[in-house]
Amino acid sequence: METGLRSDQYDVIEKHTQSGLDLVEKYVKFAKERTEVEQNYAKQLRNLTKKYSPKRGSKEEQECRFSSHQSFLDILNEVNDYAGQREVIAENMILNICLELSKYLQDLKQERKTHLSDAKKAQQSLESSYKQLESSKKRFEREWREAEKANQNAEKADQDINATKADVEKAKMQAHMRTHVAEECKNDYAAQLQKYNQEQSQFYFTEMPQILNKLQDMDEQRAVKLAQGYVSFANTEKLVMPIISKCLEGIAKAGGNTNGKNDSLALIEQHKSGFERPGDLEFEDYSQGINRASSDS
Amino acid sequence: METGLRSDQYDVIEKHTQSGLDLVEKYVKFAKERTEVEQNYAKQLRNLTKKYSPKRGSKEEQECRFSSHQSFLDILNEVNDYAGQREVIAENMILNICLELSKYLQDLKQERKTHLSDAKKAQQSLESSYKQLESSKKRFEREWREAEKANQNAEKADQDINATKADVEKAKMQAHMRTHVAEECKNDYAAQLQKYNQEQSQFYFTEMPQILNKLQDMDEQRAVKLAQGYVSFANTEKLVMPIISKCLEGIAKAGGNTNGKNDSLALIEQHKSGFERPGDLEFEDYSQGINRASSDS
Repeated sequence: METGLRSDQYDVIEKHTQSGLDLVEKYVKFAKERTEVEQNYAKQLRNLTKKYSPKRGSKEEQECRFSSHQSFLDILNEVNDYAGQREVIAENMILNICLELSKYLQDLKQERKTHLSDAKKAQQSLESSYKQLESSKKRFEREWREAEKANQNAEKADQDINATKADVEKAKMQAHMRTHVAEECKNDYAAQLQKYNQEQSQFYFTEMPQILNKLQDMDEQRAVKLAQGYVSFANTEKLVMPIISKCLEGIAKAGGNTNGKNDSLALIEQHKSGFERPGDLEFEDYSQGINRASSDS
Repeated sequence: METGLRSDQYDVIEKHTQSGLDLVEKYVKFAKERTEVEQNYAKQLRNLTKKYSPKRGSKEEQECRFSSHQSFLDILNEVNDYAGQREVIAENMILNICLELSKYLQDLKQERKTHLSDAKKAQQSLESSYKQLESSKKRFEREWREAEKANQNAEKADQDINATKADVEKAKMQAHMRTHVAEECKNDYAAQLQKYNQEQSQFYFTEMPQILNKLQDMDEQRAVKLAQGYVSFANTEKLVMPIISKCLEGIAKAGGNTNGKNDSLALIEQHKSGFERPGDLEFEDYSQGINRASSDS
């Protein structure tokens, strides 16, 4: 005969709920590390844009009057905004998944502990009741054996022709007394048995099913909450997708804003004062005087 | 007087086209570093999914019969696919931006070099023509001075009463000869001047505008090509956005697939043989024999 839950059954429930908790814990850790990857990615993108952005007052900054350069600057700004969105993803994952589930996990651990402790208590109470039953059963057995012996003694004295009437009376009194004690032990055993059977039935058909149902509800609730965390993982990123799309649109637009013709015109406009073309050189006639002299001759 | 392009003007064109090339080079480097960030990001995501994926035959892998665990595995797989898409972005940026523009940049450098060298050659040719003009002008000036002197000598001899007829004739011959030489030099100077003015006009109104137009076309073409590279930067990512969206859908779906109730049922189904509830304990009546003895008495 066994008392309490079969140990393998209890272990199954204990292990299954523990494995559920472990999964939540693991998922929180996973989400946390994902945010670190995300933050690292954002940081690298920010460093990249910083590295390629022109310094204030630099030659490169002046070049930005040309659309080709200005568009590159626009792209850097969009990539920077893009990095910002990756940071938003990381922050929201921390808030909506890591912190949310970590807090929930603490409650869950506490709840599971309470249920398991209730189960343990119920089991211990049943075990203690069983021990009482065993001891009252043993007492009953022992006392009946004693009563039996006393009755045999009384019978023997009754049939002994050498026994005095007083001896017989004394033996019969003894037998009667022991039988009375033994009957009281029998009644006690019967009462303990009834009590135990009630408790056992209570344990197996009410208490344990209730606790197991609570653990099951808890585990199902855990699965629901974790599923929300899973969905949150996707939604956190989906939420910024439109803004990320806008960044990409901004980059494409910066490409579209590049206008080499306008840049040429700007360059020509700026430097057109330099486009002076010299006229023809004039003939310098050194022969004017000589021609006269020559024609004079 | 100046020859050739004003040096500041030439510098402007040279610097502007150089700055255009530098920008392309810078953009290629920027895109290259962006792909490294992207590849690094993908690598970290892959490492993360690997770290959290259950080992073959492990206890965790067996847990995947429960939807909560299976969904987490699905998410890991989606994140892995997601990482793959980031790698696609990196690869396509290398192909469509870095390699494409690097190759173009080489052609561009060569083309610019050719145009600038053509400009230099034209300028040198005009300068050399100017030097010839200067030297023929000086010769003309010198020869006319000599001829003037010879004519004055001839006049002096003509008026000198002490001069012999032979002296006068000789001086006149000399004056005539030098005047002839000087006139040839004058004609040469005139021819050189005409040639130079033609060349100068050719240089300023045909050659240099042509070269500058070519450089301008080249730079505008460079801007167009770079703008394509800018747009490509956005498009490369936009192209994988639907697949990334699918990964996110997959993650959300994995969340939706989590079913705690089913997991409970599966657990119960698997372990239901363990759910044996003991029946009531029976009364063990040690008093049967004694009762008889007692009732016999």
